[in-house]
Amino acid sequence: MKILVINAGSSSIKYQLFEMPQSVVLARGIVERVGQPDAVLSHTGNDSNIRRPVQAGSHQEGISVILQALADPQTGTVEDIRQISAVGHRVVHGGEEFTDSIRIDSHVQESIRRVADLAPLHNPPNLTGIQAARQALPDAVQVACFDTAFHTSLSPAAYLYGLPYEIYEKYRVRRYGFHGISHRYVARRAAVLMNRDKYDVNLITCHLGNGSSITAVKNGKSADTSMGLTPLEGLLMGTRCGDLDPAILFYLSGKGYSIDQLNDLCNKKSGLLGVSGVSNDMRNLMELAEKGNRRAKLAIDIFCYRIRKYIGAYTAALGSLDGVIFTGGIGENCPSVREGVCSDLTQIGIQIDSDRNRAAQPKERLISSEKSRVKVYVIATNEEAAIAADTYSLAQA
Amino acid sequence: MKILVINAGSSSIKYQLFEMPQSVVLARGIVERVGQPDAVLSHTGNDSNIRRPVQAGSHQEGISVILQALADPQTGTVEDIRQISAVGHRVVHGGEEFTDSIRIDSHVQESIRRVADLAPLHNPPNLTGIQAARQALPDAVQVACFDTAFHTSLSPAAYLYGLPYEIYEKYRVRRYGFHGISHRYVARRAAVLMNRDKYDVNLITCHLGNGSSITAVKNGKSADTSMGLTPLEGLLMGTRCGDLDPAILFYLSGKGYSIDQLNDLCNKKSGLLGVSGVSNDMRNLMELAEKGNRRAKLAIDIFCYRIRKYIGAYTAALGSLDGVIFTGGIGENCPSVREGVCSDLTQIGIQIDSDRNRAAQPKERLISSEKSRVKVYVIATNEEAAIAADTYSLAQA
Repeated sequence: MKILVINAGSSSIKYQLFEMPQSVVLARGIVERVGQPDAVLSHTGNDSNIRRPVQAGSHQEGISVILQALADPQTGTVEDIRQISAVGHRVVHGGEEFTDSIRIDSHVQESIRRVADLAPLHNPPNLTGIQAARQALPDAVQVACFDTAFHTSLSPAAYLYGLPYEIYEKYRVRRYGFHGISHRYVARRAAVLMNRDKYDVNLITCHLGNGSSITAVKNGKSADTSMGLTPLEGLLMGTRCGDLDPAILFYLSGKGYSIDQLNDLCNKKSGLLGVSGVSNDMRNLMELAEKGNRRAKLAIDIFCYRIRKYIGAYTAALGSLDGVIFTGGIGENCPSVREGVCSDLTQIGIQIDSDRNRAAQPKERLISSEKSRVKVYVIATNEEAAIAADTYSLAQA
Repeated sequence: MKILVINAGSSSIKYQLFEMPQSVVLARGIVERVGQPDAVLSHTGNDSNIRRPVQAGSHQEGISVILQALADPQTGTVEDIRQISAVGHRVVHGGEEFTDSIRIDSHVQESIRRVADLAPLHNPPNLTGIQAARQALPDAVQVACFDTAFHTSLSPAAYLYGLPYEIYEKYRVRRYGFHGISHRYVARRAAVLMNRDKYDVNLITCHLGNGSSITAVKNGKSADTSMGLTPLEGLLMGTRCGDLDPAILFYLSGKGYSIDQLNDLCNKKSGLLGVSGVSNDMRNLMELAEKGNRRAKLAIDIFCYRIRKYIGAYTAALGSLDGVIFTGGIGENCPSVREGVCSDLTQIGIQIDSDRNRAAQPKERLISSEKSRVKVYVIATNEEAAIAADTYSLAQA
């Protein structure tokens, strides 16, 4: 069965075509600058790479471009787009309603629209992608996979903030968490590697990339996670500040900053970029720190220190801990970050093996020492494969 | 040597008169409603308690009232106020400048004034108290003891937020931490009880009261603490929200809340009060929870869960942990909170003994089990005694 996975952002549409259940990627690509006159398609499939200007003034046109590329006699991988039996859509926010991936009907589409208030930058383009795909492939099963769904198992003590309860009742202000597709994927892979039942294992999964979050997984279910109402909370990120004394905003407001300026400051000018003053890219920062750049080193130190504290916090939250998983661009590729995070953690049972940690292969590998009570793994995440699997399973049902 | 300890708030002045170095309290009391026509003095000393209306339209008059009460032929404990050799003042914010208690001169007074911007509710009344005491007792040594001083040992990775570095350089926005006099006091007492050198012990000190904070003490020095630029950050408190996704403020601003309303919401209507909807008092909440009040129980659960996570986080930050200390009104008097916090923490080496935990005496007691790798203590805090000791030591120097 051929399944198309679509991740529609505000100005780009990423896609992968899977052959399921083998989970083989037949083609993949991205349409960039959707909505602008200079849109570009990059497409890999059928042993060829193309990159060319396309007409994609809307998401609907963008989806058409993708389907044409997939069915192109030269570069395509299907003879007819009707061979695509199902489409899996990544949707950022599922609110409290969506506890799992779901087949999309008008009711579901309406619910995603209702929750857009909580993710005004993400849900509207996700929806546009869904509408366009439903129109172009009316016979295909359409499935929504939510970044929040995995975290709907949080207990009230973990998801409620210390605000008046009415703020939760009236505005649904609570911890939702994000990156759930990735956290769930690596947690399931870890259970397999550990030869454990997926519902009988306590894990801490660290998704570290330009956006970063960390999740406590208790008996296979998300028990707590560092991102909150929005993806701003928690770890230090590429340009996001993460955890903050909320009163800092009141203080800076008194210094003349408007709410919009503060929002911009915290989301786009902070994090690794803000602390270092030079880059939001971990590889750049590492090179600079190596050369003696004090603030690049400081940004890396804060990044690692926060992860370290969350690992401790979630160990306490879980009570007992079987494994820690590193994933995401930084989690998979930066041994020195993993070392900075895990060094001197024997009190809570974590000890990594320096040689194993420095190895770059395979994509799923144990990096803890034989003595470590807690197993530590690097596991390459694959959100598209997880979406394809959910979509396949719902299309079969 | 007779030492007067003064804690001047915006509308009250608390005081204790100590005989040093014995640390015996000769008299104590409070002037309430300072600045209003109906000010009241409560005074205990010389085997008598009095409570009577007084004239205290200003802090200066308030200090006069206190000195008169101390030298009163009936209820007083000194023959002449000139027997008071030194006055120790509690000052909330010492900024980055004051790393320890200090004798007050004009330069110091000016520095406290400069830093008032960071603690606009607290430093100005503290200063008024200092001015009034210097005027009334011009020959006494005056000493300032800062709530922030103990935390000036934090490393940049612990005190810097993930904001642009310029925000720190320009506005001194960083983690300062509070309750330092209490955290230091109980950390020093714990070292004595453990028969360890005070600079050779790793502790987590939990000061839990209407305001609550928790500190990681590494080799006797504060290494991290939950309150930040202001006392709003960290644990759930009586009416303060503690940790929050900062973007919640942007979200609620979009719902029509002004900055002032949000400030009020987070500081005065949140915490135990906001979640429970009924009370900011832990004893009340426990009675209500016992009777089946769901939201009272929820508030207690969140309160305990946050402390638990911080204990885990700081265990990871410290690397190795020797002891956990509970202090403050709730920390000293609520065995079920201590149990809620410490249950199921054997992974990080903490195990309390149920019988020891339920005991109400003595004021300093071990509550961990013999098997516990980490020793857990209840230690009654005594900030006034700590201020008296610092003041005595500086007056001797």
